[in-house]
Amino acid sequence: MSGNVRLYVEHSLGAGQSVTLSREQAHYLFGVMRKGVGTKVSLFNGQDGEWQAEVVEAGKRVGILTCRVQTRPVQMPPDLWLMFAPIKKARTDFIVEKAAEMGARRIVPVMTEFTNAGRIQRDRLQAHAIEAAEQCGGTFVPHVAEAIKFGALLDHWDVGRGIMFCDEALAGGSSSLPAVLAAPAAILIGPEGGFSPAERKRLGGLEAAQAVSLGPRILRADTAAVAALTLWQQALGDWDAA
Amino acid sequence: MSGNVRLYVEHSLGAGQSVTLSREQAHYLFGVMRKGVGTKVSLFNGQDGEWQAEVVEAGKRVGILTCRVQTRPVQMPPDLWLMFAPIKKARTDFIVEKAAEMGARRIVPVMTEFTNAGRIQRDRLQAHAIEAAEQCGGTFVPHVAEAIKFGALLDHWDVGRGIMFCDEALAGGSSSLPAVLAAPAAILIGPEGGFSPAERKRLGGLEAAQAVSLGPRILRADTAAVAALTLWQQALGDWDAA
Repeated sequence: MSGNVRLYVEHSLGAGQSVTLSREQAHYLFGVMRKGVGTKVSLFNGQDGEWQAEVVEAGKRVGILTCRVQTRPVQMPPDLWLMFAPIKKARTDFIVEKAAEMGARRIVPVMTEFTNAGRIQRDRLQAHAIEAAEQCGGTFVPHVAEAIKFGALLDHWDVGRGIMFCDEALAGGSSSLPAVLAAPAAILIGPEGGFSPAERKRLGGLEAAQAVSLGPRILRADTAAVAALTLWQQALGDWDAA
Repeated sequence: MSGNVRLYVEHSLGAGQSVTLSREQAHYLFGVMRKGVGTKVSLFNGQDGEWQAEVVEAGKRVGILTCRVQTRPVQMPPDLWLMFAPIKKARTDFIVEKAAEMGARRIVPVMTEFTNAGRIQRDRLQAHAIEAAEQCGGTFVPHVAEAIKFGALLDHWDVGRGIMFCDEALAGGSSSLPAVLAAPAAILIGPEGGFSPAERKRLGGLEAAQAVSLGPRILRADTAAVAALTLWQQALGDWDAA
Protein backbone atom coordinates (compact mmCIF):
# COMPACT_ATOMS: atom_id res chain seq x y z
CA MET A 1 0.00 0.00 0.00
CA SER A 2 1.22 3.51 -0.64
CA GLY A 3 2.06 5.60 2.38
CA ASN A 4 0.88 8.99 1.12
CA VAL A 5 -2.70 10.20 1.08
CA ARG A 6 -4.70 9.13 -1.97
CA LEU A 7 -8.13 10.54 -2.67
CA TYR A 8 -10.78 9.69 -5.20
CA VAL A 9 -12.48 12.74 -6.71
CA GLU A 10 -15.13 13.17 -9.37
CA HIS A 11 -13.46 16.13 -11.09
CA SER A 12 -11.49 15.70 -14.27
CA LEU A 13 -7.74 15.79 -13.66
CA GLY A 14 -5.01 17.44 -15.76
CA ALA A 15 -1.97 19.69 -15.46
CA GLY A 16 -2.87 22.91 -13.63
CA GLN A 17 -6.42 21.69 -12.97
CA SER A 18 -7.99 23.05 -9.79
CA VAL A 19 -9.89 20.48 -7.70
CA THR A 20 -12.29 21.16 -4.83
CA LEU A 21 -12.53 18.53 -2.10
CA SER A 22 -15.78 17.37 -0.58
CA ARG A 23 -16.51 18.48 2.99
CA GLU A 24 -15.71 14.99 4.25
CA GLN A 25 -12.39 14.92 2.40
CA ALA A 26 -11.42 18.36 3.70
CA HIS A 27 -12.26 17.25 7.23
CA TYR A 28 -10.22 14.07 6.82
CA LEU A 29 -7.19 15.77 5.28
CA PHE A 30 -6.98 18.88 7.46
CA GLY A 31 -8.82 17.83 10.61
CA VAL A 32 -7.88 14.17 11.01
CA MET A 33 -4.58 13.99 9.13
CA ARG A 34 -3.52 17.52 10.18
CA LYS A 35 -2.29 18.43 6.71
CA GLY A 36 -2.21 21.99 5.40
CA VAL A 37 -1.31 24.20 2.44
CA GLY A 38 1.58 22.82 0.42
CA THR A 39 0.82 19.16 1.23
CA LYS A 40 1.18 16.79 -1.73
CA VAL A 41 -1.75 14.42 -2.25
CA SER A 42 -2.40 11.78 -4.89
CA LEU A 43 -5.70 12.18 -6.73
CA PHE A 44 -7.47 9.82 -9.12
CA ASN A 45 -10.93 9.80 -10.63
CA GLY A 46 -11.04 6.41 -12.34
CA GLN A 47 -10.38 7.86 -15.78
CA ASP A 48 -7.42 10.25 -15.88
CA GLY A 49 -4.81 8.22 -14.00
CA GLU A 50 -3.12 9.32 -10.79
CA TRP A 51 -1.99 12.91 -10.31
CA GLN A 52 0.17 14.55 -7.72
CA ALA A 53 -1.69 17.59 -6.48
CA GLU A 54 -0.80 20.29 -3.99
CA VAL A 55 -3.07 21.81 -1.38
CA VAL A 56 -3.51 25.54 -2.12
CA GLU A 57 -6.37 26.27 0.26
CA ALA A 58 -7.17 24.45 3.49
CA GLY A 59 -10.15 25.12 5.74
CA LYS A 60 -12.28 23.17 8.17
CA ARG A 61 -14.78 22.21 5.51
CA VAL A 62 -13.17 23.34 2.31
CA GLY A 63 -10.06 22.35 0.43
CA ILE A 64 -8.67 23.27 -2.98
CA LEU A 65 -5.83 21.46 -4.70
CA THR A 66 -3.94 22.07 -7.93
CA CYS A 67 -2.85 19.13 -10.09
CA ARG A 68 0.87 19.18 -10.84
CA VAL A 69 2.06 16.04 -12.64
CA GLN A 70 0.52 12.75 -13.65
CA THR A 71 2.24 10.04 -11.61
CA ARG A 72 0.52 7.07 -13.27
CA PRO A 73 -1.75 6.47 -16.25
CA VAL A 74 -5.14 4.91 -15.61
CA GLN A 75 -4.93 1.14 -15.36
CA MET A 76 -8.22 -0.21 -16.65
CA PRO A 77 -9.05 -3.74 -15.52
CA PRO A 78 -10.19 -6.24 -18.15
CA ASP A 79 -13.90 -6.21 -19.01
CA LEU A 80 -14.89 -8.50 -16.14
CA TRP A 81 -17.97 -8.19 -13.94
CA LEU A 82 -18.38 -9.72 -10.51
CA MET A 83 -21.98 -10.73 -9.87
CA PHE A 84 -22.84 -12.17 -6.46
CA ALA A 85 -25.76 -12.96 -4.20
CA PRO A 86 -25.48 -10.65 -1.18
CA ILE A 87 -24.82 -12.27 2.19
CA LYS A 88 -24.29 -10.82 5.65
CA LYS A 89 -23.36 -7.14 5.65
CA ALA A 90 -19.69 -7.48 6.63
CA ARG A 91 -19.07 -10.22 4.08
CA THR A 92 -20.91 -8.32 1.35
CA ASP A 93 -18.71 -5.29 2.05
CA PHE A 94 -15.73 -7.58 1.87
CA ILE A 95 -16.73 -8.95 -1.55
CA VAL A 96 -17.01 -5.43 -2.93
CA GLU A 97 -13.62 -4.48 -1.50
CA LYS A 98 -12.01 -7.58 -2.99
CA ALA A 99 -13.61 -7.06 -6.40
CA ALA A 100 -12.10 -3.55 -6.48
CA GLU A 101 -8.67 -4.86 -5.44
CA MET A 102 -8.70 -7.78 -7.85
CA GLY A 103 -9.66 -5.73 -10.90
CA ALA A 104 -13.35 -6.15 -11.70
CA ARG A 105 -14.91 -3.47 -13.86
CA ARG A 106 -18.47 -3.76 -12.55
CA ILE A 107 -20.02 -5.23 -9.41
CA VAL A 108 -23.58 -6.54 -9.57
CA PRO A 109 -25.58 -7.70 -6.50
CA VAL A 110 -27.97 -10.43 -7.68
CA MET A 111 -31.02 -11.52 -5.70
CA THR A 112 -31.43 -15.26 -6.17
CA GLU A 113 -34.13 -17.55 -4.83
CA PHE A 114 -32.09 -18.54 -1.77
CA THR A 115 -30.61 -15.08 -1.16
CA ASN A 116 -31.21 -14.07 2.42
CA ALA A 117 -30.09 -10.46 2.72
CA GLY A 118 -31.69 -7.16 3.59
CA ARG A 119 -31.90 -4.14 1.33
CA ILE A 120 -28.73 -3.45 -0.61
CA GLN A 121 -27.43 0.07 -0.08
CA ARG A 122 -25.74 0.73 -3.37
CA ASP A 123 -24.11 3.97 -2.23
CA ARG A 124 -22.52 2.29 0.79
CA LEU A 125 -21.10 -0.46 -1.39
CA GLN A 126 -19.85 2.09 -3.93
CA ALA A 127 -18.07 3.94 -1.11
CA HIS A 128 -16.40 0.66 -0.14
CA ALA A 129 -15.14 0.17 -3.67
CA ILE A 130 -13.74 3.71 -3.69
CA GLU A 131 -12.02 3.19 -0.33
CA ALA A 132 -10.43 -0.04 -1.55
CA ALA A 133 -9.03 1.74 -4.62
CA GLU A 134 -7.77 4.64 -2.48
CA GLN A 135 -5.95 2.30 -0.11
CA CYS A 136 -4.54 -0.14 -2.64
CA GLY A 137 -3.15 2.34 -5.13
CA GLY A 138 -5.86 1.71 -7.73
CA THR A 139 -6.52 4.22 -10.50
CA PHE A 140 -9.89 2.69 -11.42
CA VAL A 141 -13.05 2.18 -9.35
CA PRO A 142 -15.57 -0.48 -10.38
CA HIS A 143 -19.16 0.66 -10.66
CA VAL A 144 -21.57 -0.95 -8.20
CA ALA A 145 -24.87 -1.61 -9.95
CA GLU A 146 -28.29 -1.60 -8.31
CA ALA A 147 -29.33 -5.02 -7.03
CA ILE A 148 -31.20 -7.03 -9.65
CA LYS A 149 -33.24 -10.22 -9.53
CA PHE A 150 -31.66 -13.33 -11.01
CA GLY A 151 -34.44 -13.78 -13.58
CA ALA A 152 -34.36 -10.15 -14.73
CA LEU A 153 -30.59 -10.30 -15.04
CA LEU A 154 -30.71 -13.26 -17.39
CA ASP A 155 -33.77 -12.02 -19.33
CA HIS A 156 -31.65 -9.23 -20.75
CA TRP A 157 -28.30 -10.97 -20.85
CA ASP A 158 -25.90 -9.97 -23.62
CA VAL A 159 -25.02 -13.38 -25.09
CA GLY A 160 -21.59 -12.07 -26.06
CA ARG A 161 -20.59 -11.92 -22.38
CA GLY A 162 -19.61 -15.30 -20.92
CA ILE A 163 -20.73 -16.25 -17.40
CA MET A 164 -18.28 -18.09 -15.16
CA PHE A 165 -20.74 -19.75 -12.87
CA CYS A 166 -19.31 -21.06 -9.61
CA ASP A 167 -21.53 -23.64 -7.99
CA GLU A 168 -20.60 -25.62 -4.92
CA ALA A 169 -22.63 -28.52 -6.33
CA LEU A 170 -19.75 -28.83 -8.81
CA ALA A 171 -17.06 -29.45 -6.19
CA GLY A 172 -14.52 -31.72 -7.78
CA GLY A 173 -15.29 -30.69 -11.37
CA SER A 174 -12.85 -28.84 -13.57
CA SER A 175 -11.36 -25.53 -12.52
CA SER A 176 -9.94 -24.82 -15.96
CA LEU A 177 -11.46 -21.90 -17.79
CA PRO A 178 -12.74 -22.46 -21.34
CA ALA A 179 -12.00 -19.79 -23.96
CA VAL A 180 -15.68 -18.79 -24.08
CA LEU A 181 -15.06 -17.11 -20.72
CA ALA A 182 -12.53 -14.64 -22.17
CA ALA A 183 -13.47 -10.96 -21.79
CA PRO A 184 -16.11 -9.64 -21.91
CA ALA A 185 -17.09 -11.94 -19.08
CA ALA A 186 -18.87 -12.08 -15.74
CA ILE A 187 -18.29 -14.20 -12.66
CA LEU A 188 -21.45 -15.35 -10.86
CA ILE A 189 -21.21 -16.41 -7.21
CA GLY A 190 -24.25 -18.05 -5.64
CA PRO A 191 -25.69 -17.53 -2.15
CA GLU A 192 -24.89 -19.63 0.90
CA GLY A 193 -27.74 -22.02 0.15
CA GLY A 194 -26.53 -22.39 -3.44
CA PHE A 195 -28.59 -21.81 -6.56
CA SER A 196 -32.10 -23.26 -6.70
CA PRO A 197 -32.79 -26.17 -9.08
CA ALA A 198 -34.69 -23.79 -11.38
CA GLU A 199 -31.80 -21.31 -11.41
CA ARG A 200 -29.30 -24.06 -12.08
CA LYS A 201 -31.43 -25.28 -14.97
CA ARG A 202 -31.70 -21.79 -16.40
CA LEU A 203 -27.92 -21.31 -16.25
CA GLY A 204 -27.39 -24.74 -17.77
CA GLY A 205 -29.50 -23.73 -20.76
CA LEU A 206 -27.52 -20.56 -21.40
CA GLU A 207 -24.79 -21.00 -23.98
CA ALA A 208 -22.73 -18.16 -22.53
CA ALA A 209 -22.70 -19.76 -19.05
CA GLN A 210 -19.94 -22.18 -18.10
CA ALA A 211 -19.72 -23.94 -14.74
CA VAL A 212 -16.30 -23.80 -13.11
CA SER A 213 -15.31 -25.71 -9.99
CA LEU A 214 -13.54 -23.98 -7.11
CA GLY A 215 -12.09 -27.20 -5.74
CA PRO A 216 -13.31 -30.02 -3.51
CA ARG A 217 -13.98 -27.93 -0.39
CA ILE A 218 -17.07 -25.84 0.28
CA LEU A 219 -16.13 -22.15 0.27
CA ARG A 220 -17.96 -19.24 1.81
CA ALA A 221 -19.26 -16.81 -0.81
CA ASP A 222 -16.60 -14.21 -0.01
CA THR A 223 -13.82 -16.75 -0.39
CA ALA A 224 -15.36 -18.03 -3.61
CA ALA A 225 -15.41 -14.50 -5.02
CA VAL A 226 -11.67 -13.97 -4.49
CA ALA A 227 -10.83 -17.47 -5.73
CA ALA A 228 -12.91 -17.02 -8.89
CA LEU A 229 -11.40 -13.58 -9.58
CA THR A 230 -7.93 -15.12 -9.17
CA LEU A 231 -8.63 -17.98 -11.59
CA TRP A 232 -10.05 -15.63 -14.18
CA GLN A 233 -7.38 -12.93 -13.91
CA GLN A 234 -4.60 -15.47 -14.12
CA ALA A 235 -5.99 -17.50 -17.00
CA LEU A 236 -7.78 -14.85 -19.07
CA GLY A 237 -7.10 -11.47 -17.47
CA ASP A 238 -4.14 -9.18 -17.07
CA TRP A 239 -1.95 -11.00 -14.54
CA ASP A 240 0.71 -12.00 -17.01
CA ALA A 241 0.19 -9.20 -19.46
CA ALA A 242 2.58 -6.60 -18.05
CA MET B 1 -22.65 -24.65 3.87
CA SER B 2 -24.38 -27.55 5.53
CA GLY B 3 -27.50 -26.80 7.49
CA ASN B 4 -27.09 -29.27 10.35
CA VAL B 5 -24.93 -28.75 13.42
CA ARG B 6 -21.29 -29.72 12.98
CA LEU B 7 -18.90 -29.83 15.91
CA TYR B 8 -15.18 -30.32 16.17
CA VAL B 9 -14.15 -32.58 19.07
CA GLU B 10 -10.79 -33.85 20.23
CA HIS B 11 -12.00 -37.39 20.99
CA SER B 12 -11.34 -40.22 18.60
CA LEU B 13 -14.42 -41.14 16.59
CA GLY B 14 -15.70 -44.59 15.58
CA ALA B 15 -18.85 -46.71 15.52
CA GLY B 16 -20.44 -46.81 18.99
CA GLN B 17 -17.86 -44.39 20.39
CA SER B 18 -19.13 -42.23 23.22
CA VAL B 19 -18.12 -38.55 23.03
CA THR B 20 -18.36 -35.94 25.76
CA LEU B 21 -18.91 -32.34 24.70
CA SER B 22 -17.08 -29.39 26.22
CA ARG B 23 -19.10 -27.07 28.47
CA GLU B 24 -19.18 -24.46 25.72
CA GLN B 25 -20.43 -26.95 23.15
CA ALA B 26 -23.13 -28.27 25.51
CA HIS B 27 -24.25 -24.70 26.17
CA TYR B 28 -24.34 -23.95 22.45
CA LEU B 29 -26.18 -27.12 21.47
CA PHE B 30 -28.73 -27.31 24.27
CA GLY B 31 -28.92 -23.71 25.48
CA VAL B 32 -28.56 -21.68 22.28
CA MET B 33 -29.74 -24.16 19.63
CA ARG B 34 -32.37 -25.71 21.95
CA LYS B 35 -31.49 -29.27 20.92
CA GLY B 36 -32.02 -32.28 23.18
CA VAL B 37 -31.68 -36.05 23.48
CA GLY B 38 -32.05 -37.79 20.13
CA THR B 39 -30.69 -34.88 18.07
CA LYS B 40 -28.35 -35.89 15.25
CA VAL B 41 -25.10 -33.94 15.10
CA SER B 42 -22.10 -34.21 12.78
CA LEU B 43 -18.78 -34.64 14.56
CA PHE B 44 -15.23 -34.50 13.21
CA ASN B 45 -11.84 -34.39 14.85
CA GLY B 46 -9.55 -33.71 11.91
CA GLN B 47 -8.48 -37.34 11.64
CA ASP B 48 -11.36 -39.80 11.62
CA GLY B 49 -13.64 -38.19 9.05
CA GLU B 50 -17.17 -37.01 9.75
CA TRP B 51 -19.55 -39.05 11.89
CA GLN B 52 -23.23 -38.79 12.52
CA ALA B 53 -23.70 -38.89 16.27
CA GLU B 54 -26.80 -38.85 18.45
CA VAL B 55 -27.28 -36.95 21.67
CA VAL B 56 -27.83 -39.45 24.52
CA GLU B 57 -27.46 -37.05 27.44
CA ALA B 58 -28.19 -33.33 27.45
CA GLY B 59 -27.64 -30.99 30.37
CA LYS B 60 -26.89 -27.32 30.86
CA ARG B 61 -23.16 -27.88 30.90
CA VAL B 62 -22.81 -31.48 29.89
CA GLY B 63 -23.56 -33.44 26.77
CA ILE B 64 -22.82 -36.99 25.69
CA LEU B 65 -23.19 -38.28 22.15
CA THR B 66 -22.81 -41.69 20.58
CA CYS B 67 -21.24 -42.04 17.13
CA ARG B 68 -23.50 -43.96 14.71
CA VAL B 69 -22.13 -43.97 11.15
CA GLN B 70 -19.27 -42.34 9.33
CA THR B 71 -20.77 -39.90 6.83
CA ARG B 72 -17.50 -38.88 5.16
CA PRO B 73 -13.87 -39.98 5.28
CA VAL B 74 -11.28 -37.42 6.32
CA GLN B 75 -10.23 -35.19 3.42
CA MET B 76 -6.61 -34.24 4.06
CA PRO B 77 -5.48 -31.13 2.22
CA PRO B 78 -2.19 -31.30 0.29
CA ASP B 79 0.99 -30.65 2.31
CA LEU B 80 0.76 -26.87 1.99
CA TRP B 81 1.51 -24.31 4.70
CA LEU B 82 0.30 -20.75 4.75
CA MET B 83 2.86 -18.44 6.34
CA PHE B 84 1.92 -14.78 6.72
CA ALA B 85 2.92 -11.61 8.50
CA PRO B 86 0.09 -10.75 10.90
CA ILE B 87 -1.84 -7.54 10.24
CA LYS B 88 -4.82 -5.95 11.96
CA LYS B 89 -6.79 -8.33 14.15
CA ALA B 90 -9.88 -8.69 11.96
CA ARG B 91 -7.83 -9.30 8.84
CA THR B 92 -5.53 -11.77 10.60
CA ASP B 93 -8.61 -13.71 11.74
CA PHE B 94 -9.81 -13.61 8.18
CA ILE B 95 -6.56 -15.04 6.81
CA VAL B 96 -6.78 -17.96 9.24
CA GLU B 97 -10.40 -18.61 8.31
CA LYS B 98 -9.56 -18.56 4.60
CA ALA B 99 -6.54 -20.85 5.01
CA ALA B 100 -8.81 -23.39 6.70
CA GLU B 101 -11.42 -23.11 3.96
CA MET B 102 -8.93 -23.26 1.10
CA GLY B 103 -7.13 -26.34 2.37
CA ALA B 104 -3.85 -25.41 4.06
CA ARG B 105 -2.39 -28.00 6.42
CA ARG B 106 -0.52 -25.60 8.71
CA ILE B 107 -0.78 -21.88 9.40
CA VAL B 108 2.33 -20.00 10.52
CA PRO B 109 2.32 -16.35 11.69
CA VAL B 110 5.70 -14.86 10.77
CA MET B 111 7.08 -11.69 12.34
CA THR B 112 8.97 -9.79 9.65
CA GLU B 113 10.92 -6.55 9.94
CA PHE B 114 7.97 -4.44 8.81
CA THR B 115 5.33 -6.44 10.68
CA ASN B 116 3.23 -4.11 12.77
CA ALA B 117 0.98 -6.31 14.89
CA GLY B 118 0.43 -6.94 18.56
CA ARG B 119 0.87 -10.24 20.36
CA ILE B 120 -0.46 -13.20 18.42
CA GLN B 121 -2.96 -15.22 20.42
CA ARG B 122 -2.41 -18.65 19.00
CA ASP B 123 -5.42 -20.19 20.76
CA ARG B 124 -7.77 -17.56 19.37
CA LEU B 125 -6.51 -18.15 15.85
CA GLN B 126 -6.79 -21.91 16.31
CA ALA B 127 -10.40 -21.47 17.40
CA HIS B 128 -11.05 -19.49 14.20
CA ALA B 129 -9.63 -22.31 12.10
CA ILE B 130 -11.88 -24.80 13.90
CA GLU B 131 -14.94 -22.61 13.41
CA ALA B 132 -14.21 -22.26 9.70
CA ALA B 133 -13.99 -26.05 9.35
CA GLU B 134 -17.21 -26.51 11.35
CA GLN B 135 -19.11 -24.08 9.16
CA CYS B 136 -17.72 -25.10 5.78
CA GLY B 137 -18.09 -28.85 6.10
CA GLY B 138 -14.38 -29.48 6.56
CA THR B 139 -13.13 -32.73 8.05
CA PHE B 140 -9.63 -31.39 8.68
CA VAL B 141 -8.43 -28.43 10.77
CA PRO B 142 -5.07 -26.82 10.01
CA HIS B 143 -2.72 -26.42 12.96
CA VAL B 144 -1.91 -22.82 13.86
CA ALA B 145 1.75 -22.60 14.88
CA GLU B 146 3.21 -20.16 17.40
CA ALA B 147 4.39 -16.92 15.80
CA ILE B 148 8.02 -17.09 14.71
CA LYS B 149 10.52 -14.48 13.58
CA PHE B 150 11.40 -14.41 9.88
CA GLY B 151 15.08 -15.09 10.52
CA ALA B 152 14.45 -18.02 12.86
CA LEU B 153 11.97 -19.51 10.40
CA LEU B 154 14.52 -19.56 7.59
CA ASP B 155 17.44 -20.62 9.82
CA HIS B 156 15.78 -23.99 10.26
CA TRP B 157 14.08 -24.28 6.91
CA ASP B 158 13.67 -27.76 5.43
CA VAL B 159 15.12 -27.24 1.95
CA GLY B 160 12.78 -29.92 0.60
CA ARG B 161 9.80 -27.60 1.11
CA GLY B 162 9.40 -24.98 -1.60
CA ILE B 163 8.43 -21.42 -0.65
CA MET B 164 5.98 -19.57 -2.88
CA PHE B 165 6.95 -16.07 -2.01
CA CYS B 166 4.42 -13.38 -2.94
CA ASP B 167 5.96 -9.95 -3.09
CA GLU B 168 4.15 -6.87 -4.27
CA ALA B 169 7.46 -5.58 -5.61
CA LEU B 170 7.01 -8.25 -8.27
CA ALA B 171 3.74 -6.89 -9.63
CA GLY B 172 3.68 -7.71 -13.30
CA GLY B 173 6.02 -10.71 -13.05
CA SER B 174 4.93 -14.25 -13.74
CA SER B 175 2.06 -15.84 -11.88
CA SER B 176 2.85 -19.32 -13.17
CA LEU B 177 4.01 -21.81 -10.57
CA PRO B 178 7.26 -23.69 -11.21
CA ALA B 179 7.36 -27.41 -10.38
CA VAL B 180 9.72 -26.77 -7.45
CA LEU B 181 6.67 -25.41 -5.63
CA ALA B 182 4.86 -28.78 -5.70
CA ALA B 183 4.00 -30.25 -2.28
CA PRO B 184 5.51 -30.13 0.26
CA ALA B 185 5.31 -26.36 -0.08
CA ALA B 186 4.62 -23.17 1.82
CA ILE B 187 3.09 -19.87 0.74
CA LEU B 188 4.69 -16.78 2.28
CA ILE B 189 2.70 -13.52 2.34
CA GLY B 190 4.51 -10.35 3.36
CA PRO B 191 3.26 -7.53 5.61
CA GLU B 192 1.59 -4.35 4.40
CA GLY B 193 4.93 -2.58 4.11
CA GLY B 194 6.36 -5.47 2.10
CA PHE B 195 9.51 -7.41 2.92
CA SER B 196 12.62 -5.45 3.90
CA PRO B 197 15.57 -5.35 1.47
CA ALA B 198 17.47 -7.74 3.76
CA GLU B 199 14.55 -10.17 3.88
CA ARG B 200 14.15 -10.02 0.12
CA LYS B 201 17.84 -10.75 -0.31
CA ARG B 202 17.65 -13.67 2.07
CA LEU B 203 14.68 -15.16 0.21
CA GLY B 204 16.43 -14.57 -3.12
CA GLY B 205 19.38 -16.62 -1.92
CA LEU B 206 17.22 -19.57 -0.90
CA GLU B 207 16.97 -22.22 -3.59
CA ALA B 208 13.62 -23.46 -2.29
CA ALA B 209 12.05 -19.97 -2.53
CA GLN B 210 10.37 -18.89 -5.75
CA ALA B 211 8.83 -15.47 -6.27
CA VAL B 212 5.33 -15.53 -7.79
CA SER B 213 3.41 -12.45 -8.93
CA LEU B 214 -0.19 -11.90 -7.91
CA GLY B 215 -0.90 -9.58 -10.80
CA PRO B 216 -0.39 -5.89 -11.56
CA ARG B 217 -2.51 -4.50 -8.72
CA ILE B 218 -1.43 -4.09 -5.12
CA LEU B 219 -3.41 -6.49 -2.93
CA ARG B 220 -4.05 -6.34 0.77
CA ALA B 221 -2.41 -9.19 2.65
CA ASP B 222 -5.71 -10.99 3.23
CA THR B 223 -6.59 -10.82 -0.46
CA ALA B 224 -3.10 -11.98 -1.39
CA ALA B 225 -3.46 -15.00 0.89
CA VAL B 226 -6.65 -16.22 -0.81
CA ALA B 227 -5.26 -15.47 -4.28
CA ALA B 228 -2.03 -17.37 -3.57
CA LEU B 229 -3.92 -20.33 -2.09
CA THR B 230 -6.11 -20.39 -5.21
CA LEU B 231 -3.15 -20.36 -7.61
CA TRP B 232 -1.38 -23.12 -5.71
CA GLN B 233 -4.42 -25.37 -5.22
CA GLN B 234 -5.40 -25.09 -8.85
CA ALA B 235 -1.93 -25.61 -10.35
CA LEU B 236 -0.33 -28.01 -7.86
CA GLY B 237 -2.96 -28.94 -5.27
CA ASP B 238 -6.15 -30.98 -5.25
CA TRP B 239 -8.59 -28.83 -7.21
CA ASP B 240 -8.65 -31.06 -10.26
CA ALA B 241 -7.74 -34.28 -8.51
CA ALA B 242 -11.20 -35.51 -7.52
